[in-house]
Amino acid sequence: MSTLDALWTELADIKDELAQRDWFPGTSGNLSIKVSDQPLTFLVTASGKDKRRRTTEDFLLVDSEGNAVDPTHLRASAETGLHSKVYQLTDAGCCLHVHTVDNNVISELYAGEGQVTFKGQELIKAFNIWEEEGSITVPIIENYADLKILAESFGKAIGPDTRAVLIRNHGITVWGKSGFEAKRHLEAIEFLFSYHIKMKSLMQFHGGQPSLI
Amino acid sequence: MSTLDALWTELADIKDELAQRDWFPGTSGNLSIKVSDQPLTFLVTASGKDKRRRTTEDFLLVDSEGNAVDPTHLRASAETGLHSKVYQLTDAGCCLHVHTVDNNVISELYAGEGQVTFKGQELIKAFNIWEEEGSITVPIIENYADLKILAESFGKAIGPDTRAVLIRNHGITVWGKSGFEAKRHLEAIEFLFSYHIKMKSLMQFHGGQPSLI
Amino acid sequence: MSTLDALWTELADIKDELAQRDWFPGTSGNLSIKVSDQPLTFLVTASGKDKRRRTTEDFLLVDSEGNAVDPTHLRASAETGLHSKVYQLTDAGCCLHVHTVDNNVISELYAGEGQVTFKGQELIKAFNIWEEEGSITVPIIENYADLKILAESFGKAIGPDTRAVLIRNHGITVWGKSGFEAKRHLEAIEFLFSYHIKMKSLMQFHGGQPSLI
Amino acid sequence: MSTLDALWTELADIKDELAQRDWFPGTSGNLSIKVSDQPLTFLVTASGKDKRRRTTEDFLLVDSEGNAVDPTHLRASAETGLHSKVYQLTDAGCCLHVHTVDNNVISELYAGEGQVTFKGQELIKAFNIWEEEGSITVPIIENYADLKILAESFGKAIGPDTRAVLIRNHGITVWGKSGFEAKRHLEAIEFLFSYHIKMKSLMQFHGGQPSLI
Repeated sequence: MSTLDALWTELADIKDELAQRDWFPGTSGNLSIKVSDQPLTFLVTASGKDKRRRTTEDFLLVDSEGNAVDPTHLRASAETGLHSKVYQLTDAGCCLHVHTVDNNVISELYAGEGQVTFKGQELIKAFNIWEEEGSITVPIIENYADLKILAESFGKAIGPDTRAVLIRNHGITVWGKSGFEAKRHLEAIEFLFSYHIKMKSLMQFHGGQPSLI
Repeated sequence: MSTLDALWTELADIKDELAQRDWFPGTSGNLSIKVSDQPLTFLVTASGKDKRRRTTEDFLLVDSEGNAVDPTHLRASAETGLHSKVYQLTDAGCCLHVHTVDNNVISELYAGEGQVTFKGQELIKAFNIWEEEGSITVPIIENYADLKILAESFGKAIGPDTRAVLIRNHGITVWGKSGFEAKRHLEAIEFLFSYHIKMKSLMQFHGGQPSLI
Repeated sequence: MSTLDALWTELADIKDELAQRDWFPGTSGNLSIKVSDQPLTFLVTASGKDKRRRTTEDFLLVDSEGNAVDPTHLRASAETGLHSKVYQLTDAGCCLHVHTVDNNVISELYAGEGQVTFKGQELIKAFNIWEEEGSITVPIIENYADLKILAESFGKAIGPDTRAVLIRNHGITVWGKSGFEAKRHLEAIEFLFSYHIKMKSLMQFHGGQPSLI
Repeated sequence: MSTLDALWTELADIKDELAQRDWFPGTSGNLSIKVSDQPLTFLVTASGKDKRRRTTEDFLLVDSEGNAVDPTHLRASAETGLHSKVYQLTDAGCCLHVHTVDNNVISELYAGEGQVTFKGQELIKAFNIWEEEGSITVPIIENYADLKILAESFGKAIGPDTRAVLIRNHGITVWGKSGFEAKRHLEAIEFLFSYHIKMKSLMQFHGGQPSLI
């Protein structure tokens, strides 16, 4: 199996797993895996596919501009520019963008602050953060209909310690050095979101925020 | 495979997927796919079947009056008249009716207003609504025990931009040009419902409605 | 396939489906299917089995006293007496007892009233109740550790229109003429419970009870 | 099949089932099964594995110090010391450590009390507690980054009737004489947690605690 085939299989396996979790509602969401660095190329979701099916047309190979490397009738996902930003600005090898009710709720609740920070949770170690008082901050950006403006804003939100970016009511983008790490980061951040929402709903009467944030 | 067989398979696949989501509780719900336009015929759920099983008697072909086109011992779903209305009033090729806890909750919460509107959510694009400030409105009608009166009321609720109708405490009916599009609309609207309910539960103390609606 | 084998398979299929829904937490719950009327015999869950596995020792045939009809090392579920009451007092052909978080919550919330009534919900038709203003009432009894006292109290709660009984913080027992009907009743009542809890949580600030009950 | 193989298979089956429940978010969690008593050896999760896959490198055999019994490139889970404490202080044959949103929420809500007690629930019988007024208490300890200090604190929390220990925002550790019993205990305690959280969210307006605790 060539490297490209192996990376395709890795990405298709992740897609199957996330589809099984129902993290691509209404055909939303997209994923990519880096194939080469110089020049940058990556496999990315083709537009308009049913992500519950596994086909030979689920992904296509694109360059840093999101253009197909080989002639194809497939179109790259409209949000390919976000994946490209991630590969250009970080050491990511895989990038996942999904919508969940909980990540959209968090993005709306904390849109005013422009970010949300979690601490005091063992799951933070999933991000290779090992300090006793370790915390993780996820920037939240506005959702611009113009995808070029969105990509610009998205790129500016990525700092040296950023592992994920929330777009307001437009899901989360998470990455990792490998597909395995990207998936681990995604599972961990969704866990933190769900935990936070449940704590917050239980503490509404006790004066605002859970102590964890 | 003839066209009819292909459409049967498409509808059976959608049924399997919705059954797996548990969107047919207590054998409720029904689905249909259009077979011909002039005259109108469509495959529709046979009455009283366990929707978790896949059998050769799950659907039957009916005309615009809901009568079986060929002799059969099967009875069309009692709610076939709603499907017929959809095919007569819209360009739908597939129509889905399901009960979920969340769509029933929304139908009850906003029954007084007679409709519910969502905006500011990326998932609205699943309905091919691309404007920055795009919104989607779902009419809510009362649940009449008399199915003829229900079908009349249902038909009157369908305007040129309507993609779905809620019946109060009686689930949602969603459609699309194809089975794929109908399913995408259904997943997206259920996501919007679940999001809205979670936001609302978190904002009870902060004065009523989430800002999104 | 003999009738006994066919009934065994029907019950085992239902068990698999309910286990997949996670409705037997901690090996709780039990199910039965009637085999003969005169004298009464029924297949019932053997005690202490992992309900996620399907084995030839999942059920045993018992009489109206809960005694094994044939020599066996298997013990009938400690709650076999409840199943026997159902077959003696109703026309049930199948009886299901499961614990869910939601049915236990409802049993606790309305224990003081001794019953809970649902109306205004389409899903009520799953119980073959077709009137416009149809309602369904589920009695709630206290949970006695003494299983004989529990069975007495359980039997007294069953009236001519009863289709299900809640035991306080001890799950629900539901029945139907066939396995298919029992399952339909169970799915419908759990839907009504989940709907009611969600409505109630959203309406805490608006003065108590949802309008539906 | 040797005893070791049989125990490996038992543990791998439990891992598959818990992974399917999504109780190892972000590769968190670990499990073990005792192989011998004198000296103590047990199979325990290897570090850094995707728990949704089943491989021949998922577990390794370790001694009471957590050191591999045979030469291997695998590393035992960093939390192996907690499992060792359980085998040294109790009659456990299997030990499970998982993170769920609900167990973390409970650990945070009652961290101040240092424990949480449940009573009045049929599911308490899953712990072989049969008294009418039986109750189960789960100690809650702080989450120390230093795993030696954590293991010390964990050991001190285990009394003669303890079946599970919560670590604040770091999941639950549950055990049983066999894999089957450990799984039953885990399912039952998670049910009690979920029930308690739902009751509490419904009773916020009625003055604090549900009556059950």
